[in-house]
Amino acid sequence: MKLMEERIRRDGKIREGGVLKVDSFLNHQMDIRLYQEMGKEFFRLYERERVNKILTIEASGIGIACITAEYFDVPVIFAKKSKTKNIAGEVYTTQVESFTHGKVYDIMVSKEFLGPEDRVLMIDDFLANGSALKGLAQLVRDAGAAVVGAGICVEKAFQPGGDLIRGMGIRVESLARIKSMSVENGIEFC
Amino acid sequence: MKLMEERIRRDGKIREGGVLKVDSFLNHQMDIRLYQEMGKEFFRLYERERVNKILTIEASGIGIACITAEYFDVPVIFAKKSKTKNIAGEVYTTQVESFTHGKVYDIMVSKEFLGPEDRVLMIDDFLANGSALKGLAQLVRDAGAAVVGAGICVEKAFQPGGDLIRGMGIRVESLARIKSMSVENGIEFC
Repeated sequence: MKLMEERIRRDGKIREGGVLKVDSFLNHQMDIRLYQEMGKEFFRLYERERVNKILTIEASGIGIACITAEYFDVPVIFAKKSKTKNIAGEVYTTQVESFTHGKVYDIMVSKEFLGPEDRVLMIDDFLANGSALKGLAQLVRDAGAAVVGAGICVEKAFQPGGDLIRGMGIRVESLARIKSMSVENGIEFC
Repeated sequence: MKLMEERIRRDGKIREGGVLKVDSFLNHQMDIRLYQEMGKEFFRLYERERVNKILTIEASGIGIACITAEYFDVPVIFAKKSKTKNIAGEVYTTQVESFTHGKVYDIMVSKEFLGPEDRVLMIDDFLANGSALKGLAQLVRDAGAAVVGAGICVEKAFQPGGDLIRGMGIRVESLARIKSMSVENGIEFC
């Protein structure tokens, strides 16, 4: 998606250690017009797949998932990262490793909201090591639901996540795929 | 907002200890059509206020904030709950007490995204003790920006948050205000 690549080139900031800061438009401040364009594109890519639910993970996937859901006219579920008093009852749960935060945590979805009748599109802002997306796919499969695919805003194609998830037989559509980036040489898309 | 009250009556679940579970449509699974109606209503209430930014807090406020932002055609900022490697630089920060999770945590917003030129509408799913909303208002004021008001999906009017925030001179608009609720007697709106 040209618009996404252009926006990353213009407003993304490359930091040491493979960090790409996109917090002026994607995951701290959120440019809702850009979100609408992303939502339309995910709909174009998956509209024939009879998606009836969108699944994401807190926190930065939620906004994109909600705007995308308007085009599909389906509900969104977000996987929660920690147990709260307000999730009682039975949950699907699995573990995810966060490289950004340097820790392993549980994610969970109530069993009420995912079942064998569901065809699920997973949405997230970043795909890097693939741990979060693999976790989401695990929750969907545990529920007996169908994984239609994933819609990702920014894929770091130089990290193993994309190959990992596609290797599981899951369709992954990324709006921008970064081949390489460095403070010295800038950013190159696939 | 009648629609919100009806939905809470139909699908909300009252638990012991003043807990209202609305996770089938509001803060785990999210009914996007309902979100659109909420967004329209917040726009109707605040459209004359020259809002140019919407501020919320992760995680469950983000979806409502993003859909609402479409009607205002403004960006959303979500306050983050913990420091990550990806927020470098200067931030506005304050402390919030979570009664649900039983702990105190920091929230923060990058100084880049809030300034004296901003007129900010705060959006959140629940208003109970008011700690999160008070924290958001503090961040806005620290930035020298104007607090236009707050848009809340569900206010527990039997808890002190509403009075606390209104007592600070902040306009609060809640789509459903719960006067009382109990497992035995059900729910009564204001």
